[in-house]
Amino acid sequence: MIIVPEKEIAGLIGRAEAFEAIENIFAAMSSGAAYNFPVIREAIGHADALYGFKSGFDRSSLALGLKSGGYWPGNAERDLTNHQSTVFLFDADTGQAKAVVGGNLLTALRTAAASAVSIKHLARKDAKVLGMIGAGHQSAFQMRAAAEHRNFEKVIGWNFHPEMLSRLEETASELGLPYESVDLTQMGAEADVIISITSSFKPIFKGTQVRPGTHIACMGTDTKGKQEVDVELIAMATLFTDEVAQSATIGECQHAVADGIVSKDNINEIGAVINGTHRGRTSESEITLFDGTGVGLQDLAVASAAVDLAIKKGVAIEVDF
Amino acid sequence: MIIVPEKEIAGLIGRAEAFEAIENIFAAMSSGAAYNFPVIREAIGHADALYGFKSGFDRSSLALGLKSGGYWPGNAERDLTNHQSTVFLFDADTGQAKAVVGGNLLTALRTAAASAVSIKHLARKDAKVLGMIGAGHQSAFQMRAAAEHRNFEKVIGWNFHPEMLSRLEETASELGLPYESVDLTQMGAEADVIISITSSFKPIFKGTQVRPGTHIACMGTDTKGKQEVDVELIAMATLFTDEVAQSATIGECQHAVADGIVSKDNINEIGAVINGTHRGRTSESEITLFDGTGVGLQDLAVASAAVDLAIKKGVAIEVDF
Repeated sequence: MIIVPEKEIAGLIGRAEAFEAIENIFAAMSSGAAYNFPVIREAIGHADALYGFKSGFDRSSLALGLKSGGYWPGNAERDLTNHQSTVFLFDADTGQAKAVVGGNLLTALRTAAASAVSIKHLARKDAKVLGMIGAGHQSAFQMRAAAEHRNFEKVIGWNFHPEMLSRLEETASELGLPYESVDLTQMGAEADVIISITSSFKPIFKGTQVRPGTHIACMGTDTKGKQEVDVELIAMATLFTDEVAQSATIGECQHAVADGIVSKDNINEIGAVINGTHRGRTSESEITLFDGTGVGLQDLAVASAAVDLAIKKGVAIEVDF
Repeated sequence: MIIVPEKEIAGLIGRAEAFEAIENIFAAMSSGAAYNFPVIREAIGHADALYGFKSGFDRSSLALGLKSGGYWPGNAERDLTNHQSTVFLFDADTGQAKAVVGGNLLTALRTAAASAVSIKHLARKDAKVLGMIGAGHQSAFQMRAAAEHRNFEKVIGWNFHPEMLSRLEETASELGLPYESVDLTQMGAEADVIISITSSFKPIFKGTQVRPGTHIACMGTDTKGKQEVDVELIAMATLFTDEVAQSATIGECQHAVADGIVSKDNINEIGAVINGTHRGRTSESEITLFDGTGVGLQDLAVASAAVDLAIKKGVAIEVDF
């Protein structure tokens, strides 16, 4: 059995490797080669923790396994990440445990890669202004990944707590891009691409604020009840997602589906665009929206890449198991 | 993170340790301190494999995690066990991965311990004849564990394939007990305790064959459609199980519940007997039946014991994860 500790991940897998893994797995999901198993998510009644598993199998790469972990709100006081993740991979031919991989950085990279994949395939080619809604830990990952897929000339940002906006300014500066904090009206009026990455339970950005031609990646909604944009915006946009079933139940589209404003049939797999079976954006004025819900197969894809690279670079720990 | 390889398990945990762990976890389940999460079970469409997870949390011991694995029918040709299991434990205070434990032998030990716990708490004290229905790999584990809880003077056995009965004879001989192969009528007429451990999809042993005072542990039915005894026998017996929800849906009681012959309310937790909140057997003539469905918490309980013993004996592999 191979062990790839959390501390090795940063030296193994970067944005390019994560992007390739996520683009490939979205394509495999859409072609039917890969599927996610049901998600387990439990409030365990201890340490206020939410714990669970996301799992799946990709017949094309033979990646089989799960990401286990969850959210421990008291971890920060212990100098630990509140979100804790570990990925376990199995040999699809025998069922034997194959690898244990630290999943914290991988989760950040795969989530950033998902919105980057949507930007590559759905944003206007001439997009110049990147809008960021949300300035938490994950926002820097999303911005860095996005910046590689269009020639952005400026970043604009908004956050519920303005004192955190310095993270966006610093990240933009690291990318050599000017930065400006804006209100949501200016966000909609100026941005060509918007990434929302919040844990909001009510709509932040609205259909009345968006302008034609915008691509929006909603990356924060992964639970029943969360919501980043209003249903009017969902109704105006051409909708894409990683997994339609999750989008309609726990993703950004859940409210519009529940209200009967859109149906599952209106939500398209991003993998279909990658595979060329959906034509994606069809005009310069179309509003495209990607609902990134996060699936177990993303975790298996980046963890498999990390294992291959760890073996290649000689940092994989091999245990006779 | 602690690794306890499969090959170390035999030197760490025996029947006594497994029995104690299983008796304690059944008690914790009944008192409400421990609960199992939903089971994931998938035919993955590769190598004819069935793959999945059983998981849960015990607030009393803080055991948190899952057993992952499944059934790979082609493994025998590769000199590997068809059933492959690995247990993953997490720190309930932080969510960090705590241990990876080989789960093949542990699964055999915890399944054997479950029927032994039922015999300790439900069989007549004067039971003399142990009946075994089924002679596969697991039957030897069940017989050895059972033999420690009553002064059995004889073992009788039946199997669908008679050529496999030598396993029962050899195991009985190892325990210093005489052995006889019998038909099912003689089984019912002579046995005081019966363990069925088959993968049957139709009833083998019948209500017309059982005699008063018998304790029967049905250990083979863990999936929709499987069945070891007929519904008449279920209707005649006082019913006990590890987990009522599983008993009524994927365990031996599923058919009688589906037919409306018994209801969930007729099925009692074995943990209630251990805790003294159910009085168990009430007469020498009562027929008691334990439906052992197998739950994730059993796996976590024996794996936790294995980790503690591995640390104590210096065979735990510690990896800086």
